[in-house]
Amino acid sequence: MGLKTAAEYRQSLRDGRVVYLNGGQVEDVTAHPALRVGVDTAAFDYEMAEMPEYRDLAVVTDEKTGEPISRYYYTPKNSGDLLKRHELMVTGTRANQGIVPFTKDIGADSMNAVSMTAQMMGKKEYVERAENFRAYLQKNDLSMAGAMTDVKGNRVLRPSDPRQAHPDYYVRIVDRNRDGIVVRGAKVHITAAAYFNELLIMPCRNMSEADADYAVSFAIPANTKGVVQICHPFHYQIGADNFPVDIPVRNHTDSMIIFDDVLVPWDRVFLAGEWEFAMPLVYNFATLHRHTGCSYHIPILEILVGMAQAIAEYNGIDRVSHIREQITDLAIQLQTLKSLSKASCLDYEIYGGIPIPNRTVTNIAKYNYANSWHNCTKLIQDIAGGLLITAPTYRDWQNPKTRGYIEKYLGGKAGISTEDRLRMFQIIRHALSAESEVVAIHAEGSLAAQRMMILVEAMGDIQECKQWAIGLAGSKKAAADT
Amino acid sequence: MGLKTAAEYRQSLRDGRVVYLNGGQVEDVTAHPALRVGVDTAAFDYEMAEMPEYRDLAVVTDEKTGEPISRYYYTPKNSGDLLKRHELMVTGTRANQGIVPFTKDIGADSMNAVSMTAQMMGKKEYVERAENFRAYLQKNDLSMAGAMTDVKGNRVLRPSDPRQAHPDYYVRIVDRNRDGIVVRGAKVHITAAAYFNELLIMPCRNMSEADADYAVSFAIPANTKGVVQICHPFHYQIGADNFPVDIPVRNHTDSMIIFDDVLVPWDRVFLAGEWEFAMPLVYNFATLHRHTGCSYHIPILEILVGMAQAIAEYNGIDRVSHIREQITDLAIQLQTLKSLSKASCLDYEIYGGIPIPNRTVTNIAKYNYANSWHNCTKLIQDIAGGLLITAPTYRDWQNPKTRGYIEKYLGGKAGISTEDRLRMFQIIRHALSAESEVVAIHAEGSLAAQRMMILVEAMGDIQECKQWAIGLAGSKKAAADT
Amino acid sequence: MGLKTAAEYRQSLRDGRVVYLNGGQVEDVTAHPALRVGVDTAAFDYEMAEMPEYRDLAVVTDEKTGEPISRYYYTPKNSGDLLKRHELMVTGTRANQGIVPFTKDIGADSMNAVSMTAQMMGKKEYVERAENFRAYLQKNDLSMAGAMTDVKGNRVLRPSDPRQAHPDYYVRIVDRNRDGIVVRGAKVHITAAAYFNELLIMPCRNMSEADADYAVSFAIPANTKGVVQICHPFHYQIGADNFPVDIPVRNHTDSMIIFDDVLVPWDRVFLAGEWEFAMPLVYNFATLHRHTGCSYHIPILEILVGMAQAIAEYNGIDRVSHIREQITDLAIQLQTLKSLSKASCLDYEIYGGIPIPNRTVTNIAKYNYANSWHNCTKLIQDIAGGLLITAPTYRDWQNPKTRGYIEKYLGGKAGISTEDRLRMFQIIRHALSAESEVVAIHAEGSLAAQRMMILVEAMGDIQECKQWAIGLAGSKKAAADT
Amino acid sequence: MGLKTAAEYRQSLRDGRVVYLNGGQVEDVTAHPALRVGVDTAAFDYEMAEMPEYRDLAVVTDEKTGEPISRYYYTPKNSGDLLKRHELMVTGTRANQGIVPFTKDIGADSMNAVSMTAQMMGKKEYVERAENFRAYLQKNDLSMAGAMTDVKGNRVLRPSDPRQAHPDYYVRIVDRNRDGIVVRGAKVHITAAAYFNELLIMPCRNMSEADADYAVSFAIPANTKGVVQICHPFHYQIGADNFPVDIPVRNHTDSMIIFDDVLVPWDRVFLAGEWEFAMPLVYNFATLHRHTGCSYHIPILEILVGMAQAIAEYNGIDRVSHIREQITDLAIQLQTLKSLSKASCLDYEIYGGIPIPNRTVTNIAKYNYANSWHNCTKLIQDIAGGLLITAPTYRDWQNPKTRGYIEKYLGGKAGISTEDRLRMFQIIRHALSAESEVVAIHAEGSLAAQRMMILVEAMGDIQECKQWAIGLAGSKKAAADT
Repeated sequence: MGLKTAAEYRQSLRDGRVVYLNGGQVEDVTAHPALRVGVDTAAFDYEMAEMPEYRDLAVVTDEKTGEPISRYYYTPKNSGDLLKRHELMVTGTRANQGIVPFTKDIGADSMNAVSMTAQMMGKKEYVERAENFRAYLQKNDLSMAGAMTDVKGNRVLRPSDPRQAHPDYYVRIVDRNRDGIVVRGAKVHITAAAYFNELLIMPCRNMSEADADYAVSFAIPANTKGVVQICHPFHYQIGADNFPVDIPVRNHTDSMIIFDDVLVPWDRVFLAGEWEFAMPLVYNFATLHRHTGCSYHIPILEILVGMAQAIAEYNGIDRVSHIREQITDLAIQLQTLKSLSKASCLDYEIYGGIPIPNRTVTNIAKYNYANSWHNCTKLIQDIAGGLLITAPTYRDWQNPKTRGYIEKYLGGKAGISTEDRLRMFQIIRHALSAESEVVAIHAEGSLAAQRMMILVEAMGDIQECKQWAIGLAGSKKAAADT
Repeated sequence: MGLKTAAEYRQSLRDGRVVYLNGGQVEDVTAHPALRVGVDTAAFDYEMAEMPEYRDLAVVTDEKTGEPISRYYYTPKNSGDLLKRHELMVTGTRANQGIVPFTKDIGADSMNAVSMTAQMMGKKEYVERAENFRAYLQKNDLSMAGAMTDVKGNRVLRPSDPRQAHPDYYVRIVDRNRDGIVVRGAKVHITAAAYFNELLIMPCRNMSEADADYAVSFAIPANTKGVVQICHPFHYQIGADNFPVDIPVRNHTDSMIIFDDVLVPWDRVFLAGEWEFAMPLVYNFATLHRHTGCSYHIPILEILVGMAQAIAEYNGIDRVSHIREQITDLAIQLQTLKSLSKASCLDYEIYGGIPIPNRTVTNIAKYNYANSWHNCTKLIQDIAGGLLITAPTYRDWQNPKTRGYIEKYLGGKAGISTEDRLRMFQIIRHALSAESEVVAIHAEGSLAAQRMMILVEAMGDIQECKQWAIGLAGSKKAAADT
Repeated sequence: MGLKTAAEYRQSLRDGRVVYLNGGQVEDVTAHPALRVGVDTAAFDYEMAEMPEYRDLAVVTDEKTGEPISRYYYTPKNSGDLLKRHELMVTGTRANQGIVPFTKDIGADSMNAVSMTAQMMGKKEYVERAENFRAYLQKNDLSMAGAMTDVKGNRVLRPSDPRQAHPDYYVRIVDRNRDGIVVRGAKVHITAAAYFNELLIMPCRNMSEADADYAVSFAIPANTKGVVQICHPFHYQIGADNFPVDIPVRNHTDSMIIFDDVLVPWDRVFLAGEWEFAMPLVYNFATLHRHTGCSYHIPILEILVGMAQAIAEYNGIDRVSHIREQITDLAIQLQTLKSLSKASCLDYEIYGGIPIPNRTVTNIAKYNYANSWHNCTKLIQDIAGGLLITAPTYRDWQNPKTRGYIEKYLGGKAGISTEDRLRMFQIIRHALSAESEVVAIHAEGSLAAQRMMILVEAMGDIQECKQWAIGLAGSKKAAADT
Repeated sequence: MGLKTAAEYRQSLRDGRVVYLNGGQVEDVTAHPALRVGVDTAAFDYEMAEMPEYRDLAVVTDEKTGEPISRYYYTPKNSGDLLKRHELMVTGTRANQGIVPFTKDIGADSMNAVSMTAQMMGKKEYVERAENFRAYLQKNDLSMAGAMTDVKGNRVLRPSDPRQAHPDYYVRIVDRNRDGIVVRGAKVHITAAAYFNELLIMPCRNMSEADADYAVSFAIPANTKGVVQICHPFHYQIGADNFPVDIPVRNHTDSMIIFDDVLVPWDRVFLAGEWEFAMPLVYNFATLHRHTGCSYHIPILEILVGMAQAIAEYNGIDRVSHIREQITDLAIQLQTLKSLSKASCLDYEIYGGIPIPNRTVTNIAKYNYANSWHNCTKLIQDIAGGLLITAPTYRDWQNPKTRGYIEKYLGGKAGISTEDRLRMFQIIRHALSAESEVVAIHAEGSLAAQRMMILVEAMGDIQECKQWAIGLAGSKKAAADT
C-alpha cells in the first residue's frame, strides 16, 4: 500500500462502474477517447508525487505511521500547512497546463468538512468513522470527489415540501437497516467523478426537522451498485480547425450522479438525520472548497493576463493608453486573488478542531474573482479584436490556395509571425468560452452564496464597528443594548 | 426589373464568385450545407417584401420613377423615415428568429455614407456616380455588403508607415489607368459578403497625405476577377447533442475579402486619393451603421430578457429578491436601447444633405449596449445555474437507459416539463456564446471608437455648459476667450 | 384674479403660518434672511410668466374659461403638452441659476395624481372635488407643495402595526365629523413648503385594510390651524470665505410638517379610508414626480459637465487621455438623461384618463441619473485635484500679506487668471456637496423604489419576450400556460 | 533628550513660525482656537508613548544607542517590523477617535524614501546626511511633515517648460553657495505642517535634464526664514446646530507652504540637481506613503461600516435584502483593505536597502479603497434616508416648542431613542462630507498615479504570464524574443 503510481490509479478505475456519455455507456473510462483525457489530467497528481521537484510539496510523512501520504489527506496544523497546500494546488495546476488535477483536493475538502462536523456534533461514532475513513484514504492514496449539489427541483422549496413534483429532488434516506442506509436521489456538477475512486456525498443546504431524511452524508466507491453517472460532453481534442499543439490536451468533465436506491454501509455514513448539522457541514465544506477554488483559479487568471499582454503586443497596441488601463485592470484582479488567498491562510481560524482559511477573506477572494470574470473576458476580447472569431481556420492555413493570403494579410506587428498570432487567437478563443464563464460564477457556489457567507462571517466585526460608531455619536445608551 | 424575389436572389448568387470555407472552395453558395443557411437568412429580406403584413414597411415608391423599391435604398427625408427604417430592421430581425437579414441595411448605410461624402467633397463626378449607383441598386434590388475594416498589421502605425511589415495592410490603389483603378489589400469581418451581390469598400481610418493611395472607396460585384473570400466556420445546424427544433436555423458568417489587384471601373470609384475625406467617410458610415446595429440588437436583447425570465420561472426563483434585481437590470438595458434608438431618430441631424440619426445619441445607445453585454451574460448565467453547461445532452435523452433518470431528476418547478427546461438551457447556451460577446463589442466598431465619437459630437454642448459654469462662478473674463 | 405677480405671491405668504428654523420661530418668511432666498427662488416662476421670452412656455389659455393660466395646472392632452411642460421646467431651472423654482411643478404632479386616482376610484364626489380644486388653483395661480413622505418610525412595519412605538408615524385620520376629517402625523422632506400657499398631502405606501385610517389625501392652506413646519438650515449666503458673485443666491429648504390634529373640510379631502387606492395614488404621483425630477436635474448635470470641462482646461489637462474618458462619461450621463426624458414623453401612456410620461422610461431615466451621481462627483473631484479643498480662501486673497503668494502660485494654464481658477473651485465645492448627493438619490423616491417600478411596468414586455424565447426553444407546451 | 512628552511637543511649536489662516496671521499655533485642535490631534502620538497599553507598539529600542526611540523613525528590518508599524498606525488612529495623529508617519516615510534614494544614488555624502538626519529625528523625537506636491501651473507641462506662466510652479534651486542652496516655490496639501517641527521636501514627478534645478530634496525646521504657511479652514468645533459630544474634537488642516528664497544648509540637502533620481525618490515615497494611507484609512472605513449597520438597525431595515447587500459591499471593502494591507507586509520587497511593503499590493490596496469611496458613501446615504439632510437641528431640539414634535415623530425602531437616531445622522453627515471624498481620492496620490504604479510593478509578472501563454499556444518562436 501507500502512494499510488499513475498506472495503479488508472488500473483502479477498471472496476465496473456505470458511466454514460454522449448517449452511450462507457466500458473503460481509461480507454474512452474523451474520458481518458480526464484520466490523464487527474493522473498528474500521482505523477507529481514521483517528480523530485514536486515531491516535498506533494507528499508529507504521516506522524502516526511514519508513512508517506498525500499532502491533501494530511490534517493541517497551522498557517504554514494551509499555505503549503495552497502552493501545491497552484503549482500542480500550473504544471498541468493550467488545469487542476482535482484528484484529491475537493475530496480532501469534503473529508475535512466531515471531520469538523463530526467534532461539532460530538458523537463518538461519527468521529471514529471519519478518522477511519481518512486513514483508509491515506493508506490507499485514493482519488475522491466531493458531491454536494442536489438537483433541487423548484429551487425555492425545501426538500420535503409537498409542492415539489416528487420527493427525490434532494438525496435522501429511503430505508435504514442493519447493514446501513439506502439512499435515493441525484447530485449534479460533480467534476471528475467518472474517473475517481470514491464519492463523498454531502447535503447542499440548511434543513428543518421535516427534512431529516435529507440530512445525509456518506462515502462510497464509484462502482457501488445503483450508482449511475451521466457525463456531459467536453473538449477533449484540438480539432481539425485548430493548429496542432505539442502539449497534451488537459480537461475534465462533470457527472450527474444518480443514486438508485444505493445501500451505504454504516461505517461509511457521516450524517443520517441530524438535520441541525446539515448546514454546518455545508458551511464547513464551502469555505474549504472556495479556498481550493481560489488556488486553482490563480493559474487560470495568469494565463488570461498572459494572453492579453501577448495579443496586445502582437497587435502593436500595448502602449496605447486605454489598452494599458485594461491590462492594469487584469493585473489588479490577478494580484488581488493571489494576495487574498494567502491572507486567508495567515489569518486562519480554528474551526471544528482544525485550522481553516479565514472564512470572510476566502469568500471575498472567491467572490471577487467570480464577479469580475466576465469583465476580464470583455477586456481581453476588446484587446484581441474581431479576428478572434472571424479569422480563417487551420484548414484554410493548410490549403495552398489560401495560405498565402492568410499569411500575408493576418500579420500584426512586424517581427511576429502570422502563425503565432493565429495561435494566440486560438488559445484565447479556447480560454474565453461561455463554459469558462459559467464555471467562474457557479463552481464552488453561486455569487449569492458567497455574499451571504461574507455577511454572516463579517457580522462580528461589523457589530464592533457599530459600537464604536455609537460611542463616537455620543449616545448615552449602553451600546450593548442596541 | 424591380423588386427581386427570394428565388431570383438565390439565382443571382450562382455567378462564379471565389469563396473558401473550412479549407475547401465553395462551388455554389446556395447549395453548400453551411452557406445556404446564410443565404436563407438573407433571403428573408426579399420574402418580407412579398408578405402583406410587411409590405408597407419593406417597400416604398420611388418618387422619381414611381416604381416600388426597397426601403433601404430610399433616401430618408425626415424623422419619420428614420423611424420607419428602424422599425423595418427591428421587425425583420424579430420575424427572422432574431437574426437580422443584413441583406441591404449595411449596404444602404455605406451607400448613404458615400452619397454624403460626395456632397461634402462637392465634386460633381462623385455625386453623379453615387446617384447612378444608388439608382442601379434600387432598380436591381441588390444585396450589398459594406466593407470597412482593414487587416491593419501593426494597429498603431499608419497605412503608409514604412515600419509596417508590408505596404498592403490597408486596401490601396496600386495602379490607375484609363479603365479605372487597380486595388490590392484585404478587408475582414465582412458579414454575409459571401452571398451578397455587391461589395462597397470604404477606408477605415483617418489618413494623412502620405496615405493618399489608401484613401479609396469603390463598389464591385462579388464575382469580380481577383476578389477572393475566405469565410469562417459558424453554427449552421442544430447538432445531434441538441433537441431538434422546427424553426429553421438562421445565421451568418463573415468573410475575409482579398483584393488581388482588382480592376475597378471609374464609374464605381467613390474616393481615390482625397485623403482628407477618408475620415469623413468613415465617420458618416459609422453613425449610420451603429444605428443599424442598435436596431438589430433590440430583438437580440429581447430574447435574452425572455430567456432570463423563462429560466427563472422554470427554476422556481422568479420571486427571489436578487433574481428580481437581475431581471430589472436586464429590462433596463433593453428599454434604454429601445428609447435611445428612437430618440436618436427624433433628434436627427442634417448632415451631408440628408437626415441622419443624432450622432451623440446613436453612439451612446450602441456603446451602452455593447459595454453591458458581458454583464447581461453574467446575469443570465447566474439565473440559469450550472446545469447550463453540465446537463446531459439530447443523445442521453434518447438513450432509454438514461432518459428516465434525466426526466425525473432535471425537472424544475412542478408543472414545467423537464424537456422544456432542457430546451431553454439549450437556447441560452446558444445565445450566450463567446462569439456573441465578440460581436457585441466589436460589431459596428470598438467601444473606444464609440466613446471617441461621443466626445467629439458632444463637445459643442459641453462647451456651452462650460460657458454657463464660468458665468455662475462670477468670472469677469469673457467666457468666449477660454 | 388670474395670474399672480411675484409681489402678490410674496404678499400671500404673510398669512400667519407657523414656521420654525434654527431653533426660533419665523415671523415673516418673506423677510427672514434665510427663507427669503427660498421665496426669491420660487418667485421666479411668477416672473417667468411676465417675461416675453418665456410667456408662451409658462402660460396657456384655459379652454373652458378663456383665461390665461399657468401651464403647470393645465391638464395635458398629448405628447406635445408633456414635452412643453418638460421644456418649461428645464428652461425655468436654467434661467434660475440652475435651481428649479418648484413653485407649482410638484404641486401640479400631486394634483394630477389626485385627479387620476379619483377617475380610477370612479367616485363622483372625489372627481368633482379634484376638478374644483384644480379650478381654484388655476384661478388663484397658487404655489403648492406635494407632501408624501411620512416619518415612518420602524420602516419595515405597516402604519397600523402595534409594534410601532406609537400609531402616528404615518399621517392618519383621528376623527371624522360633519365638517371634515381631523388628521394627525408628520411629513418630512417637503421642499419649499414654508413659502408655498397650499399643501397637498398623499400617503406614501401601499396599505392593508387595517391601515384604512392612514389612507388619506387632502389639501389645505399652509396657515391652517395645527400645521407646524420645522425647516432645516441651508446655504443662503455666499459667506466671507468665498469670492463674491453678482448672481443672486438661489436655494430651497425643506420642511418637516406636523399635523397637530388639523381639521380638513370635506371638499378638500381626496382619499379617506379607501385603502386599496393608497398605492395607486402613490404610484400615479411617483411617475409624474420623477419626470419632474428628470427635468430639473438636466440643468444640474449641465453645470457639472461645464465645471468639469472648465477646470480640466484651467488645469491644462483637457487633452489627457484619462481625463477625456472622464468627460466622456459625464457627457454620456447628461445626454442619456435628456434623451430618456424626451423619449418618455413621446412613448406616453394614457393612465387615469390623462397622458403621462412612459413609466418604465421615466423611472429608468431617474434611476440612471440618481445611481450615477456619486460617480459623476468622483470624476469631477478627480479632474479638479486636491486644491478643491485645500486652497486658501477669499479672506486670504484679501490679505495683502498672502494675496501675492496665492496669485502667483495657484495659477493654472497660462492665460487663465488665478482668480478665475479659484472661483471655479468654489462653485465645484458648492455643487458637489454631500447634500447634493443625498438629494440625487433620495429626491423623488429611493433607488429601490425606482427599480421596483421599472420591473413592475416592464413586466408586460418581459412576458412577451419570454413567450418568444419559449417558442424559439421549440417547446411544444402552449406558451400561455407558463 | 530622547522621547518627548506632549507638553514638550507643544512647547516646541512656539518658535516664530509664519502661519496664516482665515485671512489673519496666527501668533501661537498651540493657542489658536482652530489650530490647537490639530495640535491636540497630533499630540496623541506623544501621549501613546507614555501609555502602558501602547508603549510596546509605539517605542522601540535603538540597537546602536540602546535608547528608546519612536517606532516611526526605526528602520524596519523585516516583515514583522512592517506589520508592527502598520498596527501602530491602525491602533493610534482608532484610539484617536478615527483621526490619524500624522505626527511622524509621513515624515518617516519621507525619511525612508530619502535614505533609499541615497543608497540608490550611491553617493556617500547623501547617505551620511540621511543617516545623520535620521539620528537627529530619533534623538529629538521630532514631528515632521513630508512635502511633495508642487502647485504645478499647467499640469501637462514640465517644470522648466517655457510655456509655463512663470518658472516657479515647481520648487527649485535659485542659488547655490558655500552655505547651502536657496530654494523658491510652493508645496500644497501638506497636512499638519503648521504644527510640526520639521518639513522634508521632495520633488513630485520625473524630471529631464532641463529640469535639473527642480530635482531638489531637503529638510528644514518649520520656522526657517522665508517659509510661509497658509492653512485652509477646517471643522474644529461641533457647532450650535449639533448635539454636543463628550469626545474631544480631532481634526487636521493642510498647508500651502511657500518657500520665499529659503536658504537650506548643505547638511540638510538630499538631492540637488541629480534629475535622474527625482523619479526614484517620488516612487520610493509613494509606496511607503500609500501603505501609511491604507493603515489610517482602515479605522475610517470601520466607522463607516459601523454607522451603516447602526442606522440600518435604527431605521428597522437591517434585515431587508437590498440593505443587507449594501452592508455586505461595505464589509467587503473593509476586509479587502485590511487583508491587502497585511499581505503587502508579508510579501515585502527589499528596495534601496530596506524592506518595504510590496509595491503592487500596496498600490492595489490604496487604489481599491480610493476608487470605491464614493460608492460606499452612496450606500450609507441610501441606508440612512433623506433625514440625513432634512432633520431639524439641535437648536430645534432645544426649543421647547418644537422638541416634542421632533422627539415624537423622528423616532425609528421602537426601543431606539430619537436622540440617538439624530446623533447617528449627525456623525454620518460629518463623516460623509465632500471633503472626505476628495481626501479619499487625492490623498497619497491620484487614482491614475496608483494605476500607473500597479502596471509598472506588475509588469514582471505579466511578462512571465505572457511567456506561459505563448508556450501554451504552441508557438515555436523563442518566447524570449517577443
